[in-house]
Amino acid sequence: MLYADDLSPGQEFVFGTWTMTQQDIIDYARQWDPLPIHIDIAAAAAGPHGGIIASGLHTLAIYQRLLVDAFWKNVHAVGGRNFQLSFKRPVRPGMTLSGHARIDRIEHRPERGNAVLYLVSQLTDDNNQVVFDIAADAVILRRPSA
Amino acid sequence: MLYADDLSPGQEFVFGTWTMTQQDIIDYARQWDPLPIHIDIAAAAAGPHGGIIASGLHTLAIYQRLLVDAFWKNVHAVGGRNFQLSFKRPVRPGMTLSGHARIDRIEHRPERGNAVLYLVSQLTDDNNQVVFDIAADAVILRRPSA
Repeated sequence: MLYADDLSPGQEFVFGTWTMTQQDIIDYARQWDPLPIHIDIAAAAAGPHGGIIASGLHTLAIYQRLLVDAFWKNVHAVGGRNFQLSFKRPVRPGMTLSGHARIDRIEHRPERGNAVLYLVSQLTDDNNQVVFDIAADAVILRRPSA
Repeated sequence: MLYADDLSPGQEFVFGTWTMTQQDIIDYARQWDPLPIHIDIAAAAAGPHGGIIASGLHTLAIYQRLLVDAFWKNVHAVGGRNFQLSFKRPVRPGMTLSGHARIDRIEHRPERGNAVLYLVSQLTDDNNQVVFDIAADAVILRRPSA
């Protein structure tokens, strides 16, 4: 398990992949984002996207899972603080998502025993086109002094 | 169902409430954000928050569901574009969340038949303290011309 002291700006973490079916999209959205564009096949087909698109929340959840598996599970996390996200293109059934995260900077706060980690990440589709850009900062522990 | 033409800056929408149990927190996080602070009772008790806290993603999903029920389900939505979020305090088991959203401005785009809606919202806890602030913009349809 890594502390802030073990990480450096510029380090990159490549995500695994995640494929979403139409049923996955509908199931997630029925619970958390039940809009016709996400859950109603006929209405979505006649709508602005010509078919069902994933809830942005669902896409963000997949990003978080990929990021946990590629990065966070190895780090002493305290919690997220802020993030800023721009959706670039819709996610449709059958698409396989992946992406990468890069440490932009680390603000060490020895007086608090922690640090603020600034990450910039992209979620990408099968054609390596950007689904969304996200910049996030989170608090992580510094290595306890001896 | 409302179009951009039916909405005005300054309109406010008050959310219903949502109570999360420890099991809800663990179940969501096991799938989407499986970090010890969200899923491991013993590790979380010994950790920086003194107990399990909800994944920010889970909190955001609850916000989205409350916002859909209070607002989006009545509007011709095309899709989200950007959002910016600041977590203010952790969410713990048993807390009841609510909040409100306000239309900050509407950018009408008659040449595209749609508009960009800028919303500012807060998710709040039992004591009416802010859990997070969020500013988001999304595309919605304008009323089709006769």
